[in-house]
Amino acid sequence: MLGLRVRGARSPLSRCISNLRLGPTIRQVLASQPTEEVIQVHGWVRSVRLQKRVAFAMIHDGTCAQSLQVVFADPHLPQRLTNGTSVRLTGRLTTSPGPGQAIELLADSLDVVGECDPALYPIQKQALSVEYLRDHAHLRARTEAPGAVLRLRDQATRTLHDYFADLDFTYAHTPIITSNDAEGAGETFRLAPVAAAHAHAPTEFFGKPSFLTVSSQLHLEALAHAVSRVWTLSPCFRAERSQTSRHLAEFWMLEAEWAFTDSLDSLTSVVEGAVKRVLSVDSADRQLLWKGRDSAALDAAAGGAPWARMSYREAVAALQASGAAFEFAPKWGRSLASEHERWLAEAHVGGPVFVTDYPAALKPFYMRRNADEETVACFDLLVPGVGELAGGSLREERPDLLALALEEHDLDPAAYGWYAELRKYGGAPHGGFGMGFERLISWLGGIDNVRECIPMPRWAGRMLL
Amino acid sequence: MLGLRVRGARSPLSRCISNLRLGPTIRQVLASQPTEEVIQVHGWVRSVRLQKRVAFAMIHDGTCAQSLQVVFADPHLPQRLTNGTSVRLTGRLTTSPGPGQAIELLADSLDVVGECDPALYPIQKQALSVEYLRDHAHLRARTEAPGAVLRLRDQATRTLHDYFADLDFTYAHTPIITSNDAEGAGETFRLAPVAAAHAHAPTEFFGKPSFLTVSSQLHLEALAHAVSRVWTLSPCFRAERSQTSRHLAEFWMLEAEWAFTDSLDSLTSVVEGAVKRVLSVDSADRQLLWKGRDSAALDAAAGGAPWARMSYREAVAALQASGAAFEFAPKWGRSLASEHERWLAEAHVGGPVFVTDYPAALKPFYMRRNADEETVACFDLLVPGVGELAGGSLREERPDLLALALEEHDLDPAAYGWYAELRKYGGAPHGGFGMGFERLISWLGGIDNVRECIPMPRWAGRMLL
Repeated sequence: MLGLRVRGARSPLSRCISNLRLGPTIRQVLASQPTEEVIQVHGWVRSVRLQKRVAFAMIHDGTCAQSLQVVFADPHLPQRLTNGTSVRLTGRLTTSPGPGQAIELLADSLDVVGECDPALYPIQKQALSVEYLRDHAHLRARTEAPGAVLRLRDQATRTLHDYFADLDFTYAHTPIITSNDAEGAGETFRLAPVAAAHAHAPTEFFGKPSFLTVSSQLHLEALAHAVSRVWTLSPCFRAERSQTSRHLAEFWMLEAEWAFTDSLDSLTSVVEGAVKRVLSVDSADRQLLWKGRDSAALDAAAGGAPWARMSYREAVAALQASGAAFEFAPKWGRSLASEHERWLAEAHVGGPVFVTDYPAALKPFYMRRNADEETVACFDLLVPGVGELAGGSLREERPDLLALALEEHDLDPAAYGWYAELRKYGGAPHGGFGMGFERLISWLGGIDNVRECIPMPRWAGRMLL
Repeated sequence: MLGLRVRGARSPLSRCISNLRLGPTIRQVLASQPTEEVIQVHGWVRSVRLQKRVAFAMIHDGTCAQSLQVVFADPHLPQRLTNGTSVRLTGRLTTSPGPGQAIELLADSLDVVGECDPALYPIQKQALSVEYLRDHAHLRARTEAPGAVLRLRDQATRTLHDYFADLDFTYAHTPIITSNDAEGAGETFRLAPVAAAHAHAPTEFFGKPSFLTVSSQLHLEALAHAVSRVWTLSPCFRAERSQTSRHLAEFWMLEAEWAFTDSLDSLTSVVEGAVKRVLSVDSADRQLLWKGRDSAALDAAAGGAPWARMSYREAVAALQASGAAFEFAPKWGRSLASEHERWLAEAHVGGPVFVTDYPAALKPFYMRRNADEETVACFDLLVPGVGELAGGSLREERPDLLALALEEHDLDPAAYGWYAELRKYGGAPHGGFGMGFERLISWLGGIDNVRECIPMPRWAGRMLL
C-alpha cells in the first residue's frame, strides 16, 4: 500500500484507510513519497498538454488547491481528454523533473469515468464572471476560487472548534425555529400555517407564530448559565430586501456567550484570539484566493500586535476632525454609517479596530448599561474592506435595569420572562458576541461579495437549487 | 499563574489563556496539580454540607461532568448558601484526603455573585421528571443529565470533524431554505409570503415557494462532484404531526457524500468508522448518562468486530421464520416496521446491523438500481434501542436510469435538471448516507426520547423559547 500521510496525526486512522475502501485523494498523493508501487487515482481533468513523445494532464479532485501532474509516456492515451472529464489513472509516483511540483504520476493507463462534452459544458476554461458562476451554483465549486472558498470554510470551522474547545467552550446547537424575533428587528421569515387533519383552515404547527432565528444569542445566554461557556456556528435569516455585498437572506453566524466575565477586554480578547487563530492557519487556499494581490494588510492583522481600540466617542471625534467628505455627517448619538466604519478601519487605523461604548439608544435592549448611564458596554469590530465583522457586549444582568431596558425598547416583559429568570436564579455577569461567518471568509479570502463566500447563496428574489 | 492543562495540546494557546482574561474553569482546575498559589474559581452551588468545625460545598460550572469539592475551614462562610447560587471562591488547591476526588479547593473567601431563592427556584434538588424539565427548557441544562447531553453533542461533533477531515472530506454548509422538497415527502415547512413595498399582497421573498430543507443530500451531491468528499451536520425539518420518541420537527442530521465509490461496503465502512470513532472517546459524560445501568451492548458495538450485514431479502426471511408475534406481517415488498427493525437489531443480531438492497419501490428515486432491476444498492443501519440510526445508498449516476426513476416516482424532470447535469458533465459513481444526530446521541447516552437529546426540542404544538 501507498504510504499515505493522514491529515493531522490525531489517531491511528491511517491504518483504517484501506479498510474504509476509500482510494487515495490527490491531497494525500501530493503529500506522499515516490514509490514503485502501482496506485490508482481519481479526479477531473483541468488541462491537457499534448507533445510529440509525451503528454501531460493536470488532474484535480477538489481535496486541495493543487492539481496532480500526470505524465503519459504514450501521448495517444489522453488525446481526446477534455476539461471536466472524470478519470481513473493507474501508474507510479515519481519525482518530477519539472518546476512547479515535487511529485508527478507516471500513468500507464487511463479510464474515462464520466465524459464531459466541451461543446455543452457550461464551465469553460476562460475566466467566467462571478455572476455567471452564481447562475451555475451546482457547478460553481468545480472552479478554482469557489472550491478554495469551500475548503477555507472547512478549515475555519475546524480551527474555531479547536480554539473554543481549548478554552472550555461547549459547542451547542440552538433552535432555528423560534417564537421570538430577538431584537424586534421585524425583518424575520415566518413559517406558513400547515394543513391539519381536523381543522378547516391551516393552523400554526407549533400553536403560535413561528419565525426563523435572526440570532442565537438569547438561547446561548440560557446555556451559558448552565455550562459557563458556549458557542455556536448556526444559520441565521433576515428577510431584508436591500441588496448589498455584505448581506444574505440566509447566512451563518458564529456566536459565543460566557458567564463570569465583567470586562469588555475579555470579550474583545476572545474575538481577537479566534480570528487570529484562523488567520494563523497556513492555507494554500487562502494563498490561491489572494493570488496576484497584496495581502500585506491581512497578514499584518494576523501578527502579534494587539488590535486597536477606541470608544465610540473617540471615533466620532476622529471622524469629525478628519475633514473627509462623508455623505452623512458624523455626530454623537447617530449610528456610524458604512462609510464611517470603513474610514475608521481603512484610513484612520489601517487595520482592525474595536469601537466600544456606543450610546444606549443605538443598541438593543440586552446590552449592559455603563456607569455613565448614557452608553452601553459593547463593541463593534471594524476591519478594512469589510466594515463591521463582529459585534458584542456585556449583557444586562441586573434585573431592575433589564426591566427598564425592555420598557425603553417597548418590548413585552412577559415575552422575556424566561430571559429575566436567568438573572433571578444564580445570575452572573456575562457577555458575548456574534460574527458573520461569510464576512469573515470575505475578509480572509479578499472576496468582494459575500455571495461568493457561501456555497449556495440566497438573497431577495434569488434562490437556486 | 496556575499550571493549567489545556484540552488537547494543539497549539501554544495555554500561554494565551491569561491574555484572554478568562479565569480557570472547574474542568481545568480538576486537571491541575495542588499548588500554593491562590486562585479564583467561579461556579454554581450543587450542594452544601455543614459540620461543626468545617463545611463542604460541591461547585460545578458545567465545563465537565464533575463538581469541585470546596472545603471551608470557617464553617460559617457557606452557611446561607443554597442550591443554584452562583459564587466566586478564593483559595488554594490541595490534595483531597477524602474519597471521590483527587483534589479539592481550600477556600479562604466566598462571594455570592447571584442569589437563588430556594423557595422559588424551579430546579429543586429532588429528582425532576423529564417532562417537568422540558417545561423549563431555559433552566434544564443546569441539571446533570441535560448538561451531560450538551457536552456529549459537542464531543461527538468535534470527533466527527476530526474523523472526516482525516479522510479528506470537506465540511460544507448546505442551504436551509430550498425550493425542492428532496424526497417529495410533502411534510415540509413552507415560508410565509412577506410584505413588499410595492405590492398589494404579500409576495414570495425568493420569487417562488420556499421550504425548509428535509435533507442536504442533493446539494451535497453537487459539491461531491467538485471536491470529491463532503459532509455536513445541518438542521433539517419535518412538519410531521406524529409524536414518537424518535421524531422532532427540527433536528440535526449528519450527511456525507463522496465520489468515485461504487460499493456499498465503502458506504457502510465509513458509517461504521464514524460511529465507532465517536464511541471510542473516553467520556465522563457518557458514563454519567449510563450511571447505574448496563452499557455492555453499546461497549460491544464499539469493539473491533465488524457490524453485521444482511440483505433485505435475508431480513424478511429471518422475520418470517422468527415465530415472533408482530403487529404487521413481514413480507417481501413491504417496508420494515419499527417492530421488525428492533427485532432484527435486538433479538436477531443483538447489535448494530446493516440491512441492504431494499426493493426499489420502497425507496426514493435517487438510489442506484441493482443488476437484478428489482432492488437498489442501499442500506439502513439498525441499532438496539433506537431502530433506524442511518440510511444511505449509492446514487443513480446513469442518466437514462435516473430519468426512468424520476418518471416512476412521478417527479418533474425539469425540477431536477441541475441534478441530472451532475451526471452529464464529468459524472462519477458516488454515494452517501444520512444519520440523525439526536438518534446517535440517544443511542450513545442510552436516552429514551430524542426530546432529551437536543437543547431546545420542537415538535407539533410545542416550541419553547
